[in-house]
Amino acid sequence: MTFHQTPKVPLDTAEHPITAYLTRLLDEVSKQNDGAVADYIPELAKADPEDLAIAITTVDGQTYAVGTVDREFTIQSVSKPFMYGYALREHGLERVLKQVGVEPTGDPFNSIVLNNENNRPFNPMVNAGAIATSELLIGATREEKIAAQMDLYEGFAGRKLSVDQAVYASESETGNRNRAIAYMMLNSGMIEGPTEAVLDLYFRQCSILVNPIDLSVMAATLAAHGRNPLTGRVMLTPGQTSDVLSVMATCGMYDYAGQWMFDVGLPAKSGVAGSVVAVIPGQLGIAVYSPKLDAVGNSVRGIQVCKRISDDLGLHAYKDRTDTLGIVRRSYRAGDVRSHRIRSEADMKMLTEIGAGVAITEIQGPLFFGSAEKLLRHVLAEAETAEAMILDFRRATYADKAAVALLSGLPMLLAGKGCRLIVTGLVDESGMAFLADDFFQSSKDGLCEIVGQIDQALEAQENRLLQQAGAGPDTPRLSLREMDLFAGLSAEDFAVLEPAISTFQYAKGDKILSEGEEGRAIYLVAKGEVTVTGQTLNGAHSFASIGPGQTFGEMALMDGGKRSATVVAKSDAMVYALSVEEVFRLSQDRPRIEPTLLRNLVRNLSVRLRSANERIRHLD
Amino acid sequence: MTFHQTPKVPLDTAEHPITAYLTRLLDEVSKQNDGAVADYIPELAKADPEDLAIAITTVDGQTYAVGTVDREFTIQSVSKPFMYGYALREHGLERVLKQVGVEPTGDPFNSIVLNNENNRPFNPMVNAGAIATSELLIGATREEKIAAQMDLYEGFAGRKLSVDQAVYASESETGNRNRAIAYMMLNSGMIEGPTEAVLDLYFRQCSILVNPIDLSVMAATLAAHGRNPLTGRVMLTPGQTSDVLSVMATCGMYDYAGQWMFDVGLPAKSGVAGSVVAVIPGQLGIAVYSPKLDAVGNSVRGIQVCKRISDDLGLHAYKDRTDTLGIVRRSYRAGDVRSHRIRSEADMKMLTEIGAGVAITEIQGPLFFGSAEKLLRHVLAEAETAEAMILDFRRATYADKAAVALLSGLPMLLAGKGCRLIVTGLVDESGMAFLADDFFQSSKDGLCEIVGQIDQALEAQENRLLQQAGAGPDTPRLSLREMDLFAGLSAEDFAVLEPAISTFQYAKGDKILSEGEEGRAIYLVAKGEVTVTGQTLNGAHSFASIGPGQTFGEMALMDGGKRSATVVAKSDAMVYALSVEEVFRLSQDRPRIEPTLLRNLVRNLSVRLRSANERIRHLD
Repeated sequence: MTFHQTPKVPLDTAEHPITAYLTRLLDEVSKQNDGAVADYIPELAKADPEDLAIAITTVDGQTYAVGTVDREFTIQSVSKPFMYGYALREHGLERVLKQVGVEPTGDPFNSIVLNNENNRPFNPMVNAGAIATSELLIGATREEKIAAQMDLYEGFAGRKLSVDQAVYASESETGNRNRAIAYMMLNSGMIEGPTEAVLDLYFRQCSILVNPIDLSVMAATLAAHGRNPLTGRVMLTPGQTSDVLSVMATCGMYDYAGQWMFDVGLPAKSGVAGSVVAVIPGQLGIAVYSPKLDAVGNSVRGIQVCKRISDDLGLHAYKDRTDTLGIVRRSYRAGDVRSHRIRSEADMKMLTEIGAGVAITEIQGPLFFGSAEKLLRHVLAEAETAEAMILDFRRATYADKAAVALLSGLPMLLAGKGCRLIVTGLVDESGMAFLADDFFQSSKDGLCEIVGQIDQALEAQENRLLQQAGAGPDTPRLSLREMDLFAGLSAEDFAVLEPAISTFQYAKGDKILSEGEEGRAIYLVAKGEVTVTGQTLNGAHSFASIGPGQTFGEMALMDGGKRSATVVAKSDAMVYALSVEEVFRLSQDRPRIEPTLLRNLVRNLSVRLRSANERIRHLD
Repeated sequence: MTFHQTPKVPLDTAEHPITAYLTRLLDEVSKQNDGAVADYIPELAKADPEDLAIAITTVDGQTYAVGTVDREFTIQSVSKPFMYGYALREHGLERVLKQVGVEPTGDPFNSIVLNNENNRPFNPMVNAGAIATSELLIGATREEKIAAQMDLYEGFAGRKLSVDQAVYASESETGNRNRAIAYMMLNSGMIEGPTEAVLDLYFRQCSILVNPIDLSVMAATLAAHGRNPLTGRVMLTPGQTSDVLSVMATCGMYDYAGQWMFDVGLPAKSGVAGSVVAVIPGQLGIAVYSPKLDAVGNSVRGIQVCKRISDDLGLHAYKDRTDTLGIVRRSYRAGDVRSHRIRSEADMKMLTEIGAGVAITEIQGPLFFGSAEKLLRHVLAEAETAEAMILDFRRATYADKAAVALLSGLPMLLAGKGCRLIVTGLVDESGMAFLADDFFQSSKDGLCEIVGQIDQALEAQENRLLQQAGAGPDTPRLSLREMDLFAGLSAEDFAVLEPAISTFQYAKGDKILSEGEEGRAIYLVAKGEVTVTGQTLNGAHSFASIGPGQTFGEMALMDGGKRSATVVAKSDAMVYALSVEEVFRLSQDRPRIEPTLLRNLVRNLSVRLRSANERIRHLD
């Protein structure tokens, strides 16, 4: 028995639960001996009836495979959904529907019956429909058409493929029933002919050689909404992929469709060489190869494996995996969680009291109708008791058009309720682009505000709240005497200390302290704001912003060690600097200076620590 | 136009995006005038052809509805999938399959054709199959059977229902084709009869009166895996629900099934009174009512509305919403994120250096095959460079059987790689019970450890790492002199301070400080551990655990204010208490005592603040 695995993670295949499961399944199913190898084409009858392989490929390209996974065989009818996808991509649905329908038929795959209402083949999964579809290959010459055909299958499989010339010749020699079908369609105007040229392309298409892993990658490309997970090449749009899967769901298993939907519940296609592919949208592609067929023309073991996998792995279409409830990651008020802005004790206390009017909602996961509806309901309920709402989309993975339709009116809706909307974490990228566009438009119309990061938005809301409460952080310039650090100093002590203090002006962006420097002074912000930044595993990170009245670099007072972070002026700023050496010198004569400063520091650090712990509790 | 809404959230319906959308849709569709009211039963012909209503109910019971939503009409064929669910629930699949198949038929709903292989009606959505299903109603008398019938439909609708006696009489008088079907089945042994009794139940079933909101709730019950979202009553198991939806998907729209799957892609059922229901598993139920029918017997506007809703809201079965990528919420190492345990500066520094060998993975959302495979791959890759792995399931919403199969072998797999597994946040309830059972079994076998909270597990791992590094936190008992708080005190100063310190013993669970008390002393842990707790919005919360050498209640030194939290002994503990009054008294003669203690406090608070900020960065 051969094991095959794309080596993304070094796995001991024998003990990996997925390969172990597939191996057990393979052993069990190999005991099933019903069915017979197809013999309507002599070449097919040469297949080894004992061959059996199962391959699974995930939407991000991890393959698990067991059995005779290197055996190549002809793709046969499994080629049909992919050629149908080609036709939709190159000609559009409207044009394609003129040539072939989408209705299941109770008749066998090689039925000669056309829909008597409109002469169309019933669907592209029966031979008639597939032949009509093959005629849609684009090219001025046979060579160009063949190149387009190979490019299609190679694009889905993610590697170069070849044609089994013996089967191709055999199909062509013995394909008289298909000739009859083609002439019927030529007669009814469904194909333009010449029939031999169309049939040649169709026979060649059926004779392309693939192995079970190729088929699982092809199925995974459909599971990944049309994008090949190995190569990244986009073969179909999500809409075209959905159309292909719909036809596979109702017509892929011939006159076994109802039972298949009931038992397996997956879009699938079988081929007469003994392969079956099934697609679990958003998750994975499955391929099984075993040449013995049942009376309908489906691989006996292939069907058995699909049934078992669907059941064991819970993959049935109606064993739903949709999660609408997790869309709101966190919801809290500005009274409970602080921004990183370091504020005075009084301001922090004030925010706890007045912050309840600012609601913050963090979103996570995919936004589709069900989850967007939940989100909308949550936001509207929150807005009943909020004057401002921060909506953070940083962890939203995509918004489909229904979500865009539901949410793009939010700025207007909230404005009508007297609740201002601030949108953060929106990126104008792939899945979120349409929603971002709509919100940007609303912000131009003054209906909402777009801010990069949630913390910035929260800080701005805090500032607004404090200003409204008359405790504004933008107090013009704090005099030295107003600094928390000097609270409790006697007038005499302050008079002695004051000359030791220097005043510095910084322009926005100036570096004030650098990580690793010797710490010789303690700083106080008089006006403007500074940002404390440092390196983390994920690159530079802003730790805190510090405004008027607040201290930084205070550890210099302890040990004069190295600075642990870099401080940069966030706006034009005025900063007081107090030499630590001077503090110690002056404290010799005036013993209350040092303990008073230290007590103020302890109090300040305690408040900040409590705020940080509060934040952790809410984040956790 | 009437608006109707379950008033969970006070919404101005006119401007809510969903009702606004439904209203626009209603307006557009009302221009569609094709089709004709059914007249094969005289009573049905009395319906107002202009009636039009759309109702949507979510899986958690929010309804949005527009149009003639209060109009009652007879349920007709929409009753069939629910009765099929009843049969599956009461008799099991095997028994039911003897009486009716699951294969679509190309024939009309009132076809008299039975499957000639086994004499069964093709499926329970055609009249023959529905009549055969109605015979499966349980009851010793007609009254008992009627009671069971009403209980079924009332259970799905979530309210009392009645029967339209005029339609019932009319069905019975004119139902000769159905009589023929019943006699055909009696003849072939598919029903036991007497036919009039069976038909009476069937005619009565078709004559139950519902309004569009009832139907949307019934559909939402199927979307919610069989649980009525209004009443919470479980009508079907998830497996029975999946079987019902499968048959609706292939047979629910008669000979329009392929096009329906292509255009709408949802399990659905239509009724001859003009209603259509469609189900979006995991999201919502849809009901449309408009009496004008097309040639096949489906509501013209009903189909149009479903097409539009499916397209506009992205509800097509193959417009996939599965999200496998978000399963790993956070992944980090113990070197980067600290537990809440307060530790000495030296220990914290040590953990940064040696913590990389402990990997923490937090899981969020539903565990099914696709997401469990991703998680498994992530865990195995992490295990390559970790000696211990904490897996936190607190935010996992459920694990289906495939996820259980994939993950229950993890303890063994990781043990084989020399990586110990610690599982946290597992609750033995509903969706997680099976996985929890398996992990509990593994823990009994010594293959993994089960710990309640992630923070506990992380703290234990930190302790282990520190012990291995010879810096163990479980140092027997710290003498006063070893306390960080007294570092840098001269021997003389310490000698003066020591008599002011008392020693207390606490048993596990004892309360040491209470929130709100006057703070008169500062405490130091000599041995054991204490926990700082307090009330938050979400109830009591443990803020930090404090071990030997660490301080608590230090704010008393500042202002003697009230205690801001409660402190409880986490284990038997020995605690030193230092009277703040004494510190001040002694400092008068020995001026270095106060500033030295304060400097130590500032350093300690700074370290804790930095660790808290570090944690916030990683959590964020």
